Amino acid sequence: MLALIHDTTTRVDRDAPRPTPGEGDALIAVRCAGICATDLEITRGYMNFRGILGHEFVGAVMDGPPALKGKRVAGEINCVCGRCDMCTSGLASHCRRRTVVGIDGRAGAFAEYLVIPAANCHVLPDSVSDEEAVFVEPLAAAFQITRQVKIEPRTRVMVLGSGRLGLLVAQVLSLTHCRLAVLGRNPRTLGLLDRKGIQTMTAADVTRGADQDVVVDCTGSPDGLPLAMRLIRPRGTIVMKTTCAGAAPVNLAPLVVNEVTLLGSRCGPFPDAITALAARQVDVKSLISRVMPLAQGVEALAEAGRPENIKVLLKV
Amino acid sequence: MLALIHDTTTRVDRDAPRPTPGEGDALIAVRCAGICATDLEITRGYMNFRGILGHEFVGAVMDGPPALKGKRVAGEINCVCGRCDMCTSGLASHCRRRTVVGIDGRAGAFAEYLVIPAANCHVLPDSVSDEEAVFVEPLAAAFQITRQVKIEPRTRVMVLGSGRLGLLVAQVLSLTHCRLAVLGRNPRTLGLLDRKGIQTMTAADVTRGADQDVVVDCTGSPDGLPLAMRLIRPRGTIVMKTTCAGAAPVNLAPLVVNEVTLLGSRCGPFPDAITALAARQVDVKSLISRVMPLAQGVEALAEAGRPENIKVLLKV
Repeated sequence: MLALIHDTTTRVDRDAPRPTPGEGDALIAVRCAGICATDLEITRGYMNFRGILGHEFVGAVMDGPPALKGKRVAGEINCVCGRCDMCTSGLASHCRRRTVVGIDGRAGAFAEYLVIPAANCHVLPDSVSDEEAVFVEPLAAAFQITRQVKIEPRTRVMVLGSGRLGLLVAQVLSLTHCRLAVLGRNPRTLGLLDRKGIQTMTAADVTRGADQDVVVDCTGSPDGLPLAMRLIRPRGTIVMKTTCAGAAPVNLAPLVVNEVTLLGSRCGPFPDAITALAARQVDVKSLISRVMPLAQGVEALAEAGRPENIKVLLKV
Repeated sequence: MLALIHDTTTRVDRDAPRPTPGEGDALIAVRCAGICATDLEITRGYMNFRGILGHEFVGAVMDGPPALKGKRVAGEINCVCGRCDMCTSGLASHCRRRTVVGIDGRAGAFAEYLVIPAANCHVLPDSVSDEEAVFVEPLAAAFQITRQVKIEPRTRVMVLGSGRLGLLVAQVLSLTHCRLAVLGRNPRTLGLLDRKGIQTMTAADVTRGADQDVVVDCTGSPDGLPLAMRLIRPRGTIVMKTTCAGAAPVNLAPLVVNEVTLLGSRCGPFPDAITALAARQVDVKSLISRVMPLAQGVEALAEAGRPENIKVLLKV
């Protein structure tokens, strides 16, 4: 089958072996997939991953439990053992023995076919198109914030970064009617938010500091945390979505003195994301810059890395 | 009056001006004071503080509101404006215009007399001796953890560091009957905890990682956080008590992937500390290594910095 592979190089393979589902698995014919910052990081060495890339996808179940067969699904990316201390204590997404689709120890979705545990599949309503459904995974990650932090209409929230994730996070947080602003650098993506009635600013607009109840770092840059520390109020909460924070020197003494909470945030609830898309509460269509065929996967990765593009999708 | 001063040098001054209480203040004749790691940090330049050192103290109110006059008190160290956004939103200890006794913009307690707002005074019961009462301030900082994190008997908690603060934190956390262990380096202070029935270990005893629900960093060292990140379970909470963490390079990516919470923790509730001392729930007497006169303040600071000493007190 056709697949976009990363090992010593990143390339399209036309003869990748088609995966075979085991007990409890679903075989999915991928229809559409999204390129995310993590994919680009992986091609630069993150996670030391080797294999088929991709973890944002929608497809049709070709083989698996009867209830799923023929259904159009999005899939959760953490494939878990069900038996370790994390799985048995309600923290399955942190399974000690997990594999992660296209990220850690498991083939990804930039391919004609994909196998995941049937339990990871979420059936999609007809009202959500393939191109929209690709956003279920990152949108779920955005909804995770609302599960971790109490955000009310009076809560002052600043989202740092107006990239792919920042645009989703901002829209999700605006559903809480909180006092929201997005700080970014790209006039085009900030313009998208402006048109949705979400307040935007650039670093030059920051006149006061230390007055935000919640700051969400979606910068994908080591500069995000120091900026968040300047903006957060004492006893406020910084939500960290940036995994490539790296080993940058950060002075954490103000975190102690100001009793700030720093909260790591990763994957989230798929049902929240699917419901929001079906209800048209979140717009993802305007985030799609290009849709390219899987056969042009390498070019698509390059396109996804260009600042003028927001989201690049692969059609299978 | 006699006072231990830090500016260009650290020295005892016999002719320091005696402070005058203003409206709403209490004039306190200091009886006993404790030397803490922060004092030692300040003599090395932390906070750029210049003036009379010291913030752990007990004294008698010589002048102030009638209800306090003649009473023996411990004093909260944050002196607040009562009008800023922090004060009016229940976060007075984070007052935007605060001064902090012996730490930031306000004369400290290593002196014959001290002025603090009367509202900062907590009257001590007779059953708590002067030497014990000196521990109210750091003990309150230990109790702050139990206000910030839910700790239950089944909670696995690891305290890193068996120094002055670690010994108090361990005793406070043991009151919750949680599954507690203290990781330290000093056989003598670990022995103190052993004799109280608190499990202790050294870094060499750590065989498994990532299984603690809560890790409290009381190391006072930049090495504390990386160790805490190895020990904490996914979705666990690291409580940071270490202010001199400095700008050490820390890779925070695992914090995001494992959705760990990093929680800064500073000052705490005086009433909890006074009640625990009066009820003999926490032993502080065995932590006192030396009691020295204020006139020997410089030597006392040196003693407090020696690893064989735990707590050094100054008698006024």
